[in-house]
Amino acid sequence: MGPTGGNYTTCTTVGESQSEDAIHPCPTPEQSMVLVVKNPPANAGDAGSIPGLGRSPEGGHGNPLQYSCLENPMDRGAWRATVHKYATTGCSLTLHHTEKPEHEDICEYRPYSCPCPGASCKWQGSLEAVMSHLMHAHKSITTLQGEDIVFLATDINLPGAVDWVMMQSCFGHHFMLVLEKQEKYEGHQQFFAIVLLIGTRKQAENFAYRLELNGNRRRLTWEATPRSIHDGVSAAIMNSDCLVFDTAIAHLFADNGNLGINVTISTCCP
Amino acid sequence: MGPTGGNYTTCTTVGESQSEDAIHPCPTPEQSMVLVVKNPPANAGDAGSIPGLGRSPEGGHGNPLQYSCLENPMDRGAWRATVHKYATTGCSLTLHHTEKPEHEDICEYRPYSCPCPGASCKWQGSLEAVMSHLMHAHKSITTLQGEDIVFLATDINLPGAVDWVMMQSCFGHHFMLVLEKQEKYEGHQQFFAIVLLIGTRKQAENFAYRLELNGNRRRLTWEATPRSIHDGVSAAIMNSDCLVFDTAIAHLFADNGNLGINVTISTCCP
Repeated sequence: MGPTGGNYTTCTTVGESQSEDAIHPCPTPEQSMVLVVKNPPANAGDAGSIPGLGRSPEGGHGNPLQYSCLENPMDRGAWRATVHKYATTGCSLTLHHTEKPEHEDICEYRPYSCPCPGASCKWQGSLEAVMSHLMHAHKSITTLQGEDIVFLATDINLPGAVDWVMMQSCFGHHFMLVLEKQEKYEGHQQFFAIVLLIGTRKQAENFAYRLELNGNRRRLTWEATPRSIHDGVSAAIMNSDCLVFDTAIAHLFADNGNLGINVTISTCCP
Repeated sequence: MGPTGGNYTTCTTVGESQSEDAIHPCPTPEQSMVLVVKNPPANAGDAGSIPGLGRSPEGGHGNPLQYSCLENPMDRGAWRATVHKYATTGCSLTLHHTEKPEHEDICEYRPYSCPCPGASCKWQGSLEAVMSHLMHAHKSITTLQGEDIVFLATDINLPGAVDWVMMQSCFGHHFMLVLEKQEKYEGHQQFFAIVLLIGTRKQAENFAYRLELNGNRRRLTWEATPRSIHDGVSAAIMNSDCLVFDTAIAHLFADNGNLGINVTISTCCP
């Protein structure tokens, strides 16, 4: 059974002939509401590129940041107090040099990367600038208003690694809905669905989301706390900390190759 | 987080040194409430043995049934009306010989096999005799009374293919709860949880079940119609038509290697 009730949105066709790694706008404005990103095959792209939490600002993203690793001249022994690379953007922590890489991965002052899955966009900037970047550089991503919407992913049988992306706006915040198809294990395609908050980790703690697949006398539901876009989807997918289902389950719930995911956002006491 | 509320039951230890394919009774009656069956590795056992729906009575289960394939002497052409093999147990259908194998797989008069997962028990008999067989031949399977219970699978990190089994009794019926760990895809262990009715397919349509994993601000829920034990778990697992999760998800919800699954049975209008 297809999705019923609620707002829903669909992107009807994605040309197979278009080049990989391109962001495909959909044919007409009325129908082109879910951004579909076809990634290079075999675990390349966003998911494969980040070994730790979220995206790393290192690795040739095009916007190298000033690196202010200041060695403490008073200390010539094993312990060296260093100011880490986000000191210039506001972080005042002084850390042992061995603690730096770990802290930099989770530092709140680390710049935000473009949250669009797929490795194509190299943009980085402040949290406040993320929505403006998405609206200008990724116009095909549609936003639906409301706490309860239907995220309709079309053509789920598209081969290779594919991402479906849309925005949901409620409670004065913007949430990014991502469905990613990839092959974590050879010969075993899986789908990963997750909700990200365009906000900090602390803000994300105030919300909960529910993803629901409804079929013929079957229902699969995942409820969790949204991830901050600061963390991104990669770590969640790596740890299966999201809605995970394989192609057989997708077909149980899909209607003519289209999969409707009911998405509900709610607030919760932190 | 572990399971909270409801009745729950646990089997604490299953010796790794015991032979494979054996049914392991647990150490003491108080603790030995979930039957754990360790299957031969690499997709052997119940799941791998049945290409069609449920268990087939063919294939050397030890109780060969009389095969009454009666050719119609009036018809010497391509069409041959035949009485199929369960005619002796009540089925009165007369079928084209090409239709027989398909019908025999789903024939309501096909004898019931022992519903315990794993290939060790060869018992077959009538539906009415199933519970009596389970109570006498598989004494370690415990039954909990109630519509809402906790199925606590212990030692989910046991290597290889493992089944956890218990019974739930409510609405005047017995349900078998099965958690099966197996490697459908090489290097990718998955868990499959499902509820079977000790009853016919038609009876199963009157019920719904919900399996719920509860963790730290996370919940994974599967709702569906119970399978009849006539169909068994193999087809459902093959089609992922059950609660499917990988070891990473299991660890998100497990507590010290033990996984509590909330099971709720309800009646529904057919």
